[in-house]
Amino acid sequence: MAEEAAQEHPGPSAPRPVRCIVKLGGAAITNKGELESINEESLRSACAQLRQAMSESEGDGAPEKVLGMDWSKRHGDPADPAVDAEWIAGMAGLGLDTNFIVVHGAGSFGHFQASRSGVHKGGLHSTLVKAGFVATRISVTSLNQEIVRALAREGIPSVGMSPFTCGWSTSQRKIASANASQIIQSLHAGFVPVLHGDAVLDELLDCTILSGDVIIRHLAQLLSPKYVVFLTDVHGVYDRPPTDPNAVLLKEIEVDDKGSWSIVKPALLQGNNKGVEISVAAHDTTGGMETKILEAAVIARLGIDVYITKAGTEHSLRALKGDVSSDSEDWLGTVIRSSK
Amino acid sequence: MAEEAAQEHPGPSAPRPVRCIVKLGGAAITNKGELESINEESLRSACAQLRQAMSESEGDGAPEKVLGMDWSKRHGDPADPAVDAEWIAGMAGLGLDTNFIVVHGAGSFGHFQASRSGVHKGGLHSTLVKAGFVATRISVTSLNQEIVRALAREGIPSVGMSPFTCGWSTSQRKIASANASQIIQSLHAGFVPVLHGDAVLDELLDCTILSGDVIIRHLAQLLSPKYVVFLTDVHGVYDRPPTDPNAVLLKEIEVDDKGSWSIVKPALLQGNNKGVEISVAAHDTTGGMETKILEAAVIARLGIDVYITKAGTEHSLRALKGDVSSDSEDWLGTVIRSSK
Repeated sequence: MAEEAAQEHPGPSAPRPVRCIVKLGGAAITNKGELESINEESLRSACAQLRQAMSESEGDGAPEKVLGMDWSKRHGDPADPAVDAEWIAGMAGLGLDTNFIVVHGAGSFGHFQASRSGVHKGGLHSTLVKAGFVATRISVTSLNQEIVRALAREGIPSVGMSPFTCGWSTSQRKIASANASQIIQSLHAGFVPVLHGDAVLDELLDCTILSGDVIIRHLAQLLSPKYVVFLTDVHGVYDRPPTDPNAVLLKEIEVDDKGSWSIVKPALLQGNNKGVEISVAAHDTTGGMETKILEAAVIARLGIDVYITKAGTEHSLRALKGDVSSDSEDWLGTVIRSSK
Repeated sequence: MAEEAAQEHPGPSAPRPVRCIVKLGGAAITNKGELESINEESLRSACAQLRQAMSESEGDGAPEKVLGMDWSKRHGDPADPAVDAEWIAGMAGLGLDTNFIVVHGAGSFGHFQASRSGVHKGGLHSTLVKAGFVATRISVTSLNQEIVRALAREGIPSVGMSPFTCGWSTSQRKIASANASQIIQSLHAGFVPVLHGDAVLDELLDCTILSGDVIIRHLAQLLSPKYVVFLTDVHGVYDRPPTDPNAVLLKEIEVDDKGSWSIVKPALLQGNNKGVEISVAAHDTTGGMETKILEAAVIARLGIDVYITKAGTEHSLRALKGDVSSDSEDWLGTVIRSSK
């Protein structure tokens, strides 16, 4: 109901529809293979690009002073944060189009705790699963906190929103309840909701893991963003593992109204949608590329373009701006769109 | 509706009513005067007492091995956490009555950010208020994360639940919407929800601060716990600031059905309910003791005993266990109860 309201009043003073849902892939923002380690430079760069994409002024290239919104101490830094309240109060506005939603994966956070305990399989009568549920949530919400802070340092008014706390739940691992009203309220108030893959309650299994990709698909269905961007650690979807020197980047995939997909570019793979071992980030353990493609295909069928590209590149900046036309020969990444 | 269901089915296999709502006062668990600094020893002790109060076995005093549920790295500790999954999986159960809710204050977290920006006054068109909202939430959710971890290390299956994320909102600073269904679901699944004073959206003011004391009163009204405990840094409510050497501890306060309160013990102050400058923690900036007494009086009127006492003492342990009879001469603290 609330999301319909968001669509029905497109007037200038009414809430605008969501511009973009961004997935910050776990592989892009954490250091794989190192427990609970953030790739600080990659995260900082992704947040800076998000800010650029939100910016309402084209800018002359001169660095602007950013209104940092993380006024908390940083670990290991004894200095208290400095806040120039007078300067901030005098600003005319943020100058940002903040109608974005950020969803991030877990990367090297959460997987250890989830896999040691089998949270995804459910069964809260087991002390191991119950403890693992708590431990998994601690780990993924720690990452969420750090991502909210990184966005806030770039001047993006971000608010962390755990799906579990929002009351989202599943039934046999499929979303059963996922009220987006608080997300919509936050967007309307000018904040950028930051969600994440989370441990949630499941009607039949007691509990399971809800992945960031499923969350994105669900939000896209509810909120009809103009486009969806997946930032990862490789250039897009390949026809085989991207570590293979013969791997070919699939630049454009079309999805028909039955959900079947076919490769449009490169032309040499046209019509090929079987026997291609598509792969992006093999270490993404919540489904990997197959889940990602399937979720992306559902989004594309709605008429929403999906861009999958490498974080921290000129290509990711263009994707975040929605500046990827179908004949962009110089854009590196995968576009998944409806064939209609 | 959901809370009625919790009341209507008291059978052994049905959800039990909430036993206790505990306030971990900001003054007790943080170091006042030092920005964003946790009083680690006080927090650890409060969590250990909570575990003792939840324990279903009386215990012979021998230290039991605790099932720690924080499997994340700790800041500054390079070692990966060790998890004995086999031992955990072999446990018969937690042996804890987890029907508790924890709410904590902000102490030295959040106040700096909130007061520099005036978040409590509202007005999100102001860049300062918008930035302050984000900064305040970052600070208070950082503390929430640390409290959830401290509880989890004591084997308490805790889950962080920010009121903002739960969709709680106010209208002119009074609670307008505060759906507790996810809190109830979490309790039923055997988890201990951990809430906190938070920055929230306000229908009229755009935003404000919702204090932990107001949250406790609201939850007590919804969930009818057997008793409510406020843990603070002094022994209870005094007739004047507790730093005054002549301050007298008010041991028992009665609230009548009109909400008027009178001092029952000590006898020398009987009938005195005016001109007494009651005070507990003067540095508690979200209302101080006056708000606390008012909220406690509302709870007591419902027939729910409220215990206010000093964290980390034998008195706080007895309060958490609900072991405070009206004639306990050796219990140090303030009881607020209905006169009926």
